[in-house]
Amino acid sequence: MNHRIILPENEMPNKWYNVLPDLPEPLPPPLHPETLEPIEPEQLAPIFPMSLIEQEVSSMPWVPIPEPVMEVYRLYRPTPLVRAHRLEAAIGTRAKIYYKNESVSPAGSHKPNTAIPQAYYNKTEGVRRISTETGAGQWGTALSFACKMFGLQCTVYMVRCSYEQKPYRGILIRAYGAEVFPSPSERTRFGRHLLETDPHCGGSLGVAISEAIEDAVSRGDTKYALGSVLNHVILHQTITGLETKKQLEMAGEKPDILIGCVGGGSNFAGLVLPFVPDKLSGKPMRFVAVEPQACPTLTRGEYRYDYGDVARLTPLLKMHTLGHNFFPPPIHSGGLRYHGESPILSHIAKLGLVEARAYYQTEVFEAAMLFLQTEGFLPAPETSHAIKATIDIARDAAPGTVITFLYSGHGLLDLGAYDTYLRGDLKDEEYSAEDIQEALKACPNVGF
Amino acid sequence: MNHRIILPENEMPNKWYNVLPDLPEPLPPPLHPETLEPIEPEQLAPIFPMSLIEQEVSSMPWVPIPEPVMEVYRLYRPTPLVRAHRLEAAIGTRAKIYYKNESVSPAGSHKPNTAIPQAYYNKTEGVRRISTETGAGQWGTALSFACKMFGLQCTVYMVRCSYEQKPYRGILIRAYGAEVFPSPSERTRFGRHLLETDPHCGGSLGVAISEAIEDAVSRGDTKYALGSVLNHVILHQTITGLETKKQLEMAGEKPDILIGCVGGGSNFAGLVLPFVPDKLSGKPMRFVAVEPQACPTLTRGEYRYDYGDVARLTPLLKMHTLGHNFFPPPIHSGGLRYHGESPILSHIAKLGLVEARAYYQTEVFEAAMLFLQTEGFLPAPETSHAIKATIDIARDAAPGTVITFLYSGHGLLDLGAYDTYLRGDLKDEEYSAEDIQEALKACPNVGF
Repeated sequence: MNHRIILPENEMPNKWYNVLPDLPEPLPPPLHPETLEPIEPEQLAPIFPMSLIEQEVSSMPWVPIPEPVMEVYRLYRPTPLVRAHRLEAAIGTRAKIYYKNESVSPAGSHKPNTAIPQAYYNKTEGVRRISTETGAGQWGTALSFACKMFGLQCTVYMVRCSYEQKPYRGILIRAYGAEVFPSPSERTRFGRHLLETDPHCGGSLGVAISEAIEDAVSRGDTKYALGSVLNHVILHQTITGLETKKQLEMAGEKPDILIGCVGGGSNFAGLVLPFVPDKLSGKPMRFVAVEPQACPTLTRGEYRYDYGDVARLTPLLKMHTLGHNFFPPPIHSGGLRYHGESPILSHIAKLGLVEARAYYQTEVFEAAMLFLQTEGFLPAPETSHAIKATIDIARDAAPGTVITFLYSGHGLLDLGAYDTYLRGDLKDEEYSAEDIQEALKACPNVGF
Repeated sequence: MNHRIILPENEMPNKWYNVLPDLPEPLPPPLHPETLEPIEPEQLAPIFPMSLIEQEVSSMPWVPIPEPVMEVYRLYRPTPLVRAHRLEAAIGTRAKIYYKNESVSPAGSHKPNTAIPQAYYNKTEGVRRISTETGAGQWGTALSFACKMFGLQCTVYMVRCSYEQKPYRGILIRAYGAEVFPSPSERTRFGRHLLETDPHCGGSLGVAISEAIEDAVSRGDTKYALGSVLNHVILHQTITGLETKKQLEMAGEKPDILIGCVGGGSNFAGLVLPFVPDKLSGKPMRFVAVEPQACPTLTRGEYRYDYGDVARLTPLLKMHTLGHNFFPPPIHSGGLRYHGESPILSHIAKLGLVEARAYYQTEVFEAAMLFLQTEGFLPAPETSHAIKATIDIARDAAPGTVITFLYSGHGLLDLGAYDTYLRGDLKDEEYSAEDIQEALKACPNVGF
């Protein structure tokens, strides 16, 4: 009875998978934030290197992974697919639970899968410095690590409430040689403007993105990097789904149900997209996206054009959104506090390929404790959303059903949140239909 | 060019290796703390279960690993042996550097290798609760995890200065369902006595051991567990060396130099003991033990009988010691702050099989930063002693020399220490020959 399905190093996928050419409908294009017309690739050049822009709009089904990227991937990839025998026994399910363990990366999450190629492509195009935002700190850690691997400077704007909740994240980012500032910060015009209005503003991913973009466009040597949402990020993350597919085959298992938590959508999409052609060809398969009730983008947002950031610097993306001014409460799953959603994920959800569910953080931490006390490992609060859904689905599943979830990160730098939970001080928040409608009013009125 | 040598799950060793029957001289016996006569096994029964006492005095060369222990080992074992290509390149060495990565366990270190069997054997003998000490918190975390796996209660006395330096450790121990108290505590007579003398006493492993033993002997349902030093602990840790041996063979490499950090000695001994017969039979091989200058047991202590704890509750062990009253300064490598040393390790050092070296913590953190910024992973401060020695030895090594060190734990819960280092606030301490002689006066005058 094997616990871990290990893919040999020489079978690590050497191409990323682009789902777009396999979908029955094209993805609605991004729009220029001022003209509201479809944006030309070169208009993105001030913030991204050309090779990433090409990937953003690529219609090639497979994109080769450059050897220098493979070389850094091999520090932690292929990652294990693990059978959670003890969790199954504790639930009393006869379904089989597997988890794809991305927490084994140096940064402790799936985020290096895209941070490494993003740093690499910037380096090859002569960029010297990258600016970015981070929520819980997973992405900032991953990009700092990746920039150090390729000799780039890195500046991270970290959502202030997470910066204060998770002091160890900032230290780790600095240890990788990057600089990190709580956002909103005094370093950008937009940050200063927000701090004037509210000196205690806890920030949001949408705000931190605005600051990081302002930082990049105001300097000639700097580009911007995003850790989720965009097509090229999702492309890089497909390595997890491609590996999982091979590993399930090695174990002789069918992928009945795939589960992942959703903030911007990159870990979930990375896991499920390589299985989309199978589902489209009629194989019975469920893709379950799990989000927090405190930021219910897929379950309660609308599918429409919106900005990716609060300052409206990004192109308009067609996506599930709660409105770009939406400030989620400071829940401990900082990585899921984003008002929008990956356009690809939103698109395949519209095509009927995805189920979504939302949970409160208290029940999510209960699920995390059950995982910890059976499988031994401490999950990130974000990841624990996937665990909660897995437990609920496994309880009702037919014997032999194969459930695979993406274990997106460990929670070792989230122990402050666990302390709050163990003391009984964790709070749940909820929105009325009116709250959501009010937030959505900020979306621009774009007709298609 | 492989990065990670992965042992298939079905090749995980199913026996531990006992080096004692293979040594040319017998190990000096433990002595009763009052009579100073060799202690009878049954005299240890108030604090340990009989199956562990039998392992403590066993002369069998191989001890089978029970299947329930194997089952929990498989949550993280076999662990990878990793080639540190990027570290090699940064040093500019043509030696080959491998590290055996024990940080992948649920507790983040090698400690579960013995915590799991100790919890298991206690469980099979009807014990309901285990008390223990912990320094940096690695052992307390590991035993809490192991107790949860077998349904035992667990109480941890954590050295106060580490308890305060590393708050996340205490939270993780509680999340596994155990209770943890800073030591010296008000819960034991010995703790109260120390706090009366010095209310700000930072504690030591020797003090915490005294409290944990007092806790165990004062209750009928409780036994005590030790995370290092004793023969049965070292026995369980040999699984790392046995796996390493197979993995080096898989990679076609000779084990030229083996390196580990030393506190009580269990991770170092676990790595090297399975190679002792080869070295005794004449194969050229170096075993390098690395300790802190702040607690220089092997390099500056004496090989003689001493107590394992400050309150003199333990048997006398013949070992390298600085005297049981020695209070090391509160360096960040809390796991290396022990006045004594494993009797087996001390014995093989006396037989000429071990080289020892000592480093200051500032140079150790410098080595940790180089590892982090090349290999990507954050090592524990304890582990970084082995990294520092590896770097120094690799710089001078002949091309092709194979250097393997034990990566005993990650440093993700030690980020407070890294913060101190990054701010430039780390201090080194040193002892004069007179300081050491003064501390050694506490050792009892036992003639053999």
